[in-house]
Amino acid sequence: MTKTELEFMRSATAQDSSLMPNACVASWIQERRASVGTAVNQIALDAMRGWSRHAATGNIVHDSGRFFAIEGISVKTDWGGVPYWEQPIINQAEIGYLGLLGKKFGGILHILVQAKIEPGNINVVQISPTLQATKSNYTRVHRGRSPLYLEYFNGERPVTLLLDQLQSEQGARFLRKRNRNMIVELAEDEAIEVHDDFIWMSIGQIKRFMREDNVINMDTRTVLSGISYGTYAAETLEGLFTLTPSTQRQRWMLNSALVATDSLNNFRSIISWITGLKSKYELAIERMPLNRIAGWSEVDGAIRRTDGKYFSVIGVNVTIENREVLSWDQPMIKPAQEGLIAFIVRPVNGSYHFLVQAKLEAGNFDIVELAPTVQCLTGNYRTGQNEYSVRYINEVLEAPPERILFDSMQSEEGGRFFQEQNRNMIVEVGDDFPLEAGENYCWMTLNQMLRFIEFNNYLNIAARSLIAAITFD
Amino acid sequence: MTKTELEFMRSATAQDSSLMPNACVASWIQERRASVGTAVNQIALDAMRGWSRHAATGNIVHDSGRFFAIEGISVKTDWGGVPYWEQPIINQAEIGYLGLLGKKFGGILHILVQAKIEPGNINVVQISPTLQATKSNYTRVHRGRSPLYLEYFNGERPVTLLLDQLQSEQGARFLRKRNRNMIVELAEDEAIEVHDDFIWMSIGQIKRFMREDNVINMDTRTVLSGISYGTYAAETLEGLFTLTPSTQRQRWMLNSALVATDSLNNFRSIISWITGLKSKYELAIERMPLNRIAGWSEVDGAIRRTDGKYFSVIGVNVTIENREVLSWDQPMIKPAQEGLIAFIVRPVNGSYHFLVQAKLEAGNFDIVELAPTVQCLTGNYRTGQNEYSVRYINEVLEAPPERILFDSMQSEEGGRFFQEQNRNMIVEVGDDFPLEAGENYCWMTLNQMLRFIEFNNYLNIAARSLIAAITFD
Repeated sequence: MTKTELEFMRSATAQDSSLMPNACVASWIQERRASVGTAVNQIALDAMRGWSRHAATGNIVHDSGRFFAIEGISVKTDWGGVPYWEQPIINQAEIGYLGLLGKKFGGILHILVQAKIEPGNINVVQISPTLQATKSNYTRVHRGRSPLYLEYFNGERPVTLLLDQLQSEQGARFLRKRNRNMIVELAEDEAIEVHDDFIWMSIGQIKRFMREDNVINMDTRTVLSGISYGTYAAETLEGLFTLTPSTQRQRWMLNSALVATDSLNNFRSIISWITGLKSKYELAIERMPLNRIAGWSEVDGAIRRTDGKYFSVIGVNVTIENREVLSWDQPMIKPAQEGLIAFIVRPVNGSYHFLVQAKLEAGNFDIVELAPTVQCLTGNYRTGQNEYSVRYINEVLEAPPERILFDSMQSEEGGRFFQEQNRNMIVEVGDDFPLEAGENYCWMTLNQMLRFIEFNNYLNIAARSLIAAITFD
Repeated sequence: MTKTELEFMRSATAQDSSLMPNACVASWIQERRASVGTAVNQIALDAMRGWSRHAATGNIVHDSGRFFAIEGISVKTDWGGVPYWEQPIINQAEIGYLGLLGKKFGGILHILVQAKIEPGNINVVQISPTLQATKSNYTRVHRGRSPLYLEYFNGERPVTLLLDQLQSEQGARFLRKRNRNMIVELAEDEAIEVHDDFIWMSIGQIKRFMREDNVINMDTRTVLSGISYGTYAAETLEGLFTLTPSTQRQRWMLNSALVATDSLNNFRSIISWITGLKSKYELAIERMPLNRIAGWSEVDGAIRRTDGKYFSVIGVNVTIENREVLSWDQPMIKPAQEGLIAFIVRPVNGSYHFLVQAKLEAGNFDIVELAPTVQCLTGNYRTGQNEYSVRYINEVLEAPPERILFDSMQSEEGGRFFQEQNRNMIVEVGDDFPLEAGENYCWMTLNQMLRFIEFNNYLNIAARSLIAAITFD
């Protein structure tokens, strides 16, 4: 365990030592919400100021040629039941910053978080990273101000680097989009201005607020999920931690995050499992004109599937009144229904093991990524009353309350997705749950998943959202 | 250190215990070469049987629609001095097997290698993996026999898995091509038929033959490079190894492969360096018709750059007379000149550190890959007599003989590349060599590079070729 990993664990578990009590954070968030006026109105795609349709392709592009574009793709694959489809996709090739600035107070690492307004947000304001900026933002295509605190992430100001890695976004919605997930630490004696809309929260406190619906935004969750707490033998744990988990479950979860051995599958066999799937299945994506994708049509100024499934592409006019009034138009993705993402966990050898799914999504950078046990849109899995077509969904939805370790609604990124939320669940199963899993499933400890997160493009954003929610005390 | 890692180290260092002495292996290879007759003649691209030109694009495609195709791409990037170019590229989306079958003899792991004829091979026959098969091969587009020993790699026969990972091929020649690199081990008491053209060699023996020019083929080298020998503290080394390196250099190299700490840059900062480069630089590849790429033209039935640089696309007619006569036509890539790949190594804290270059190549799966200190075509770096434009090339080419740790010619894959070879060098520099390196360079231990090899698409094929050459005794 490195010094950094130990500090991460302290910050994730030492809630009582947080700079601001939970109740104060809650009322601060309420106050931020009350202080802004927002209006987000759906408008026709062709009515959006600053955006236009490419004459030949119908692709939706910004007049600057930057930000992002809505384009069409065709997807050919031998994975799953549908060998070919066409769909709109967000093409945003640039890599943006998602940065958390940390600083220790009383020995506990705190993160400077922002109460940020995004047009698609449920609850208008959600807790966001210190810095959340697209390349267009920080290279100032806007011609506006440089993003706050950028200088702590681009090398201009001296900080200690704690985390810096690329992670993927939603593979079904984005074409190979990735962000740079960073955590940097400012020296304890270094002064920093805390701007309006920013406060310091410990990692444990952020995790605590994930138990409430739609408070912690997706960008914060993805960066937090990248934190590794180290690797040890089980017997070393006791000595290292003053932390004493009060329940058997907390102990299992802590073990699953920290313990090197006693995992059901060794790392080599897990890599082989992924290699085998990537070798076996093909995913061929071709870009195509948005105005020619089959199965979709433009009605009332929005692009939707003729059967109403999945999502639609809409235009919105956004007005935000805070200290100043901002107004702009942009395309957004509006989901057809809510989704469900869930991990099934089972104690094996004194550690929780997570039933991980390998999932192919069209925009994936590398064919398959590791996903939660269940990841689906709610409309899709209900084949009849109490009948579901998605594997393992019954075990999740019919779990008795005492087996549900985590259950809350969490939003997708509010800058691109219009009021999209997924039910996030972690459900425990008993010793009688079969360890044999299908070709696309593999049991892993949390520590094994965290080892993959250290490298690009292994765990998908849904898995990372759930990992961020995990607490140890 | 796992049992597997220990066995890899034993097999890499215990030359004297090899089943067949080096001299016998050498004469066996000579004998294989003498026993075959091959004729490879250049023919016009349009004269190739079984291949045709797509009417609209001019792309070169196989009549079956499989194997591979020669297509055009445009490349736009803000990396390096050339912001835009067009070039032909090999498009072979399928993932093939490169498989080594291992078995212990006298406690030492041996690999079943093949003396394989490839049309592009210098020396006609080179030592190849047990299984070297494209998806078209093993799904039998050829309608021929199933490849020998396939059943040990596809799960049909019980083996112990030692290595199974995807690795990239030449990014300047292939569009995101990858192969499945596998090592599996057969139980010691399990009988296996050794077919003609196959023998058992230890890993140390294969490394020994890499000191000769063009004996060990690229596919064997890439799989061998994936072997990790474990990670320990320096003091643990002594107890673990009966192996006693006879020189200070061998000790440094062994430390660089095994020692966990004392590295100049920690792993987190190395990942951050890669993340920063991937975030900063853009690489946009668009496929385009082969008959419209600028700067290239078709003359005398081959496609070459108007300035004669880099490579040309040629057609060949191949006839191989061995036990039976085989004849076919195919396109190949013919290099304009030889290349040079070299690592500079420097002892730091008792371990060799390798000066690793982050390199962008058009066909890279993920923008930049980790490359040797120097990787270039020889024609490109000579700007005048004794004047070179490539960074660090003087340090390599002007190194005194006693500082040259490795120097031999190694071939590219003979199934696609026509008599292409690169000079492979490892050169040591002294304590006075500056540790400050440019933005695109980073010092790493061998152990740190091997940690990246464990995951997809970090080290490029040139770096892997050099890593395979490293010996410890």
